[in-house]
Amino acid sequence: MSTLLDQLMAEGLLISSGVDGVFLRSIRFESVLEAVAALVGRTGAADSPEVLCFPPAMPQAALVRSGYLKSFPQLLGTIHCFCGDEAGHRRLLRCVEENEPWTDQQEPSDLLLTPAACYPLYPTVARRGQLPENGGLYDIRSWCFRHEPSLDPARMQTFQIREFVRIGSSEQVLVFRQLWFERAQEFASSLAVPCIVDVANDPFFGRPGRLMADSQREQKLKYELLIAIDNEAKPTACMSFNYHLNHFGEAWNIETADGAPAFSGCVGFGLERLTLALFRYHGLDVAGWPERVRHTLRLDA
Amino acid sequence: MSTLLDQLMAEGLLISSGVDGVFLRSIRFESVLEAVAALVGRTGAADSPEVLCFPPAMPQAALVRSGYLKSFPQLLGTIHCFCGDEAGHRRLLRCVEENEPWTDQQEPSDLLLTPAACYPLYPTVARRGQLPENGGLYDIRSWCFRHEPSLDPARMQTFQIREFVRIGSSEQVLVFRQLWFERAQEFASSLAVPCIVDVANDPFFGRPGRLMADSQREQKLKYELLIAIDNEAKPTACMSFNYHLNHFGEAWNIETADGAPAFSGCVGFGLERLTLALFRYHGLDVAGWPERVRHTLRLDA
Repeated sequence: MSTLLDQLMAEGLLISSGVDGVFLRSIRFESVLEAVAALVGRTGAADSPEVLCFPPAMPQAALVRSGYLKSFPQLLGTIHCFCGDEAGHRRLLRCVEENEPWTDQQEPSDLLLTPAACYPLYPTVARRGQLPENGGLYDIRSWCFRHEPSLDPARMQTFQIREFVRIGSSEQVLVFRQLWFERAQEFASSLAVPCIVDVANDPFFGRPGRLMADSQREQKLKYELLIAIDNEAKPTACMSFNYHLNHFGEAWNIETADGAPAFSGCVGFGLERLTLALFRYHGLDVAGWPERVRHTLRLDA
Repeated sequence: MSTLLDQLMAEGLLISSGVDGVFLRSIRFESVLEAVAALVGRTGAADSPEVLCFPPAMPQAALVRSGYLKSFPQLLGTIHCFCGDEAGHRRLLRCVEENEPWTDQQEPSDLLLTPAACYPLYPTVARRGQLPENGGLYDIRSWCFRHEPSLDPARMQTFQIREFVRIGSSEQVLVFRQLWFERAQEFASSLAVPCIVDVANDPFFGRPGRLMADSQREQKLKYELLIAIDNEAKPTACMSFNYHLNHFGEAWNIETADGAPAFSGCVGFGLERLTLALFRYHGLDVAGWPERVRHTLRLDA
């Protein structure tokens, strides 16, 4: 068990649900998380993104079309439902009574849990037709799910991401990513948490996945802003800066104004992880945090 | 297709995900929803409830122990994950390439989607031991999931509830419910939306469910505050007032200060439904809403 998690649970900031990586949250934790989310929004507001909020579930078909199953089948949570009749229901209840598995009658629905905030965006943008000259910029927020039970409080199964997504020409996306490299380090510094930025790779599945990870690193498609939260030796990715090339543009036929498949990139902020970093570096008593940090987060009102 | 949904989608307040009852939301919709949620919180704040926020998923075992499967198997969404190896992954990808169902390797996890906000609360309260003399009062918020695809915008599959839960003696719970009957009608009136309060029943499954529904109505265990949103003839439940007798106290061994199984009740506010009611009665342009309503919601700042 992590020391930080022990402390958070002893103070009631996080409450175990009974399953690793799924927590109930006190208002103290949630108020900081909302303050972080609002700060993320203010940090990107000058560029006038379109702000959208997503529910925790999305269509199965859309995630498949985006190619997620090739890369991360192990993280996905599909949603299954009971479509049986009364006899099936009686069978189900007998299983429950006898303490046996009861889910064999659950059938896959057309929904699954959103694994990363930007997936529901691409079909939405595609449906609107060709992009304008200056491309698209979006500020999105979603609950995400990844099946990776852990005792590290910074690796939850169900967590929230606020994210800026840029869709347009490769130049537009690279300028966007460069801008956020600078902004993100100012962001972390305004919260007085120590961080480093490094090249990274996603946790692609299996042996073919190792090649994908190597290629992603070689092309420097992913960077992360890392903060030591639960483990000094293994800092946690609290923001990530992703360049997708024209992967989503091709998958969804999103065209730039001159008819080419659009490029895209995103900058994601892990809201729980940033919240945990604040408690880790400034203590569990928010009133005792540095004045400057409280002011940045508008917690001093 | 509903006229209101047509209007909301034409103005971009709700955006179809491609699956009925699952919507992306614009910031205009979300800002009103958050204002409603905050108003719900302020309405109950004088009683000093413990405020908790829940993630969209909860342990399967906890919902089973609460008896949900007896009553509403048809609404539940269980979460299933791929636990296969590389050969299994190749098989999965072949299915995807051939446009065949690919979910047969998904295995049930120990999680499911929370179907109503209060279910994760009972195990948490139970773990804390015997209740104090004055029982417990909680202000909770959760994303909820119910598998009932619909074209009625007021019947989403994934939606949010903010809810007050009272746990204690039957007297404490009945006093709480009576108090909220009065408050809820003032609440609706402060939003200038027409409403009625009526006895109701839950959508229990199958023929045995009809008996459960009749018994629930006879004992007046459930009331709803109804507002005509999408359908004048069939108003929508936007709040519900539920008396659970000692069902959860017995299921979870929650004891009052004198050692009896605790009684419980809850008052739930459907945040999307109340938001839809506001757009339905005051129009899609929030700036044009009655001054009094904007003031109540603190949208006039």
